Amino acid sequence: MNQTMITVQGWIGTTPMLREVAGVPVLNFRLACTPRHFNRTTGAWVDGETQWYGVSAWRRLASNGGPSLHQGDPVVVHGRLDHRTYVNKSGVEVVSLEIDAITIGHDLTRGVATFVKSASSGA
Amino acid sequence: MNQTMITVQGWIGTTPMLREVAGVPVLNFRLACTPRHFNRTTGAWVDGETQWYGVSAWRRLASNGGPSLHQGDPVVVHGRLDHRTYVNKSGVEVVSLEIDAITIGHDLTRGVATFVKSASSGA
Amino acid sequence: MNQTMITVQGWIGTTPMLREVAGVPVLNFRLACTPRHFNRTTGAWVDGETQWYGVSAWRRLASNGGPSLHQGDPVVVHGRLDHRTYVNKSGVEVVSLEIDAITIGHDLTRGVATFVKSASSGA
Amino acid sequence: MNQTMITVQGWIGTTPMLREVAGVPVLNFRLACTPRHFNRTTGAWVDGETQWYGVSAWRRLASNGGPSLHQGDPVVVHGRLDHRTYVNKSGVEVVSLEIDAITIGHDLTRGVATFVKSASSGA
Repeated sequence: MNQTMITVQGWIGTTPMLREVAGVPVLNFRLACTPRHFNRTTGAWVDGETQWYGVSAWRRLASNGGPSLHQGDPVVVHGRLDHRTYVNKSGVEVVSLEIDAITIGHDLTRGVATFVKSASSGA
Repeated sequence: MNQTMITVQGWIGTTPMLREVAGVPVLNFRLACTPRHFNRTTGAWVDGETQWYGVSAWRRLASNGGPSLHQGDPVVVHGRLDHRTYVNKSGVEVVSLEIDAITIGHDLTRGVATFVKSASSGA
Repeated sequence: MNQTMITVQGWIGTTPMLREVAGVPVLNFRLACTPRHFNRTTGAWVDGETQWYGVSAWRRLASNGGPSLHQGDPVVVHGRLDHRTYVNKSGVEVVSLEIDAITIGHDLTRGVATFVKSASSGA
Repeated sequence: MNQTMITVQGWIGTTPMLREVAGVPVLNFRLACTPRHFNRTTGAWVDGETQWYGVSAWRRLASNGGPSLHQGDPVVVHGRLDHRTYVNKSGVEVVSLEIDAITIGHDLTRGVATFVKSASSGA
């Protein structure tokens, strides 16, 4: 299928925006992730550059995510990785990394959550 | 490093048990996952067998997970996959799949969460 | 979709068996993986138990894998994880881990490969 | 640990370059990946934009990869995802996606491979 799946641990960097596209709820936000990696020269773990992803969630994940997710929240996002090339305000072609989320959850290494299952979750 | 990372979407099938090992908080529970897969013969998506994992969480993930996670909660678990072989009560050697969790979150495709960041999260 | 994707680095532990199911080539073998994990008590990396997976490959991956893959080859396998429960020769119900492979390659950390692209690969 | 692992199926888009950094072999190439994704509006699978990654391999993976990997080869790459921001020749800040490879293999959905294990592979 040639899709690239990814699981990212990061922080919500923008106010999540919930809207409808053709009657389907969609939630969008930017996700910041600061990976640590091993520097083979110095033998130390160092913070990498902060990486930014555009995240989109659809349907139930959007409608549940809307009231649950806020700027600054630490989250884990699992989904399909995509790249989008676009021309920015300065007329420069830039690459944006996008995740089409399969699921999102608050990162419990960073805090405590109270969860209420949807009536329709069928769990 | 030869470690196998895994991200599983499932349900907590047992009451999570929080205890201490040498002064370090550890949280354990069983995770049920029912994957859907494509049957090439019939051309239809079908539910696979429910898969069970033993999940262990350590330190902050354990101490935050304790008050957050309950039997029946839908969650996403990201971590290292391990197999453990042991002899069960009937004297039979069985294999248990274990996930050493890096992070856990409630699955927002299944409900709504209220999250409170830890004072010490350094986010 | 609720499928669990996995990428495993291991060794082919059995002679790969190529056959046809309803005219479609299928390749099956057992994959052995010995993960290393960090023992939090001792602070050392230790070999975990060897983990076994049943791997199945279909269509072009099967027909190309047949002449390419041999018992003892180190490989990387990427695919969908599934569990199958069955009753073994001793009448005991056991769990088998299966990977429905999306792709397989020889592990180049372990040796050198000469590759010939298929005429039909469309690359 | 906050690292993002990724497995990408793609094609080598540049001549792999093998060199030494402080006595350690390093192999670099660009990887092209064209994911397919589901368009929810049209209900069809469509090719996404080709995504480019910079891949680096170290030590045995570099020294084995050097003679094995060539421009145009279809491969599977498993490793740690990183982003690097740099200023390009036009003076514009751009983002590059990098994979620090844990393993690389030829993609057997696309062709046939002959493999020779290293004497020192310890397999």
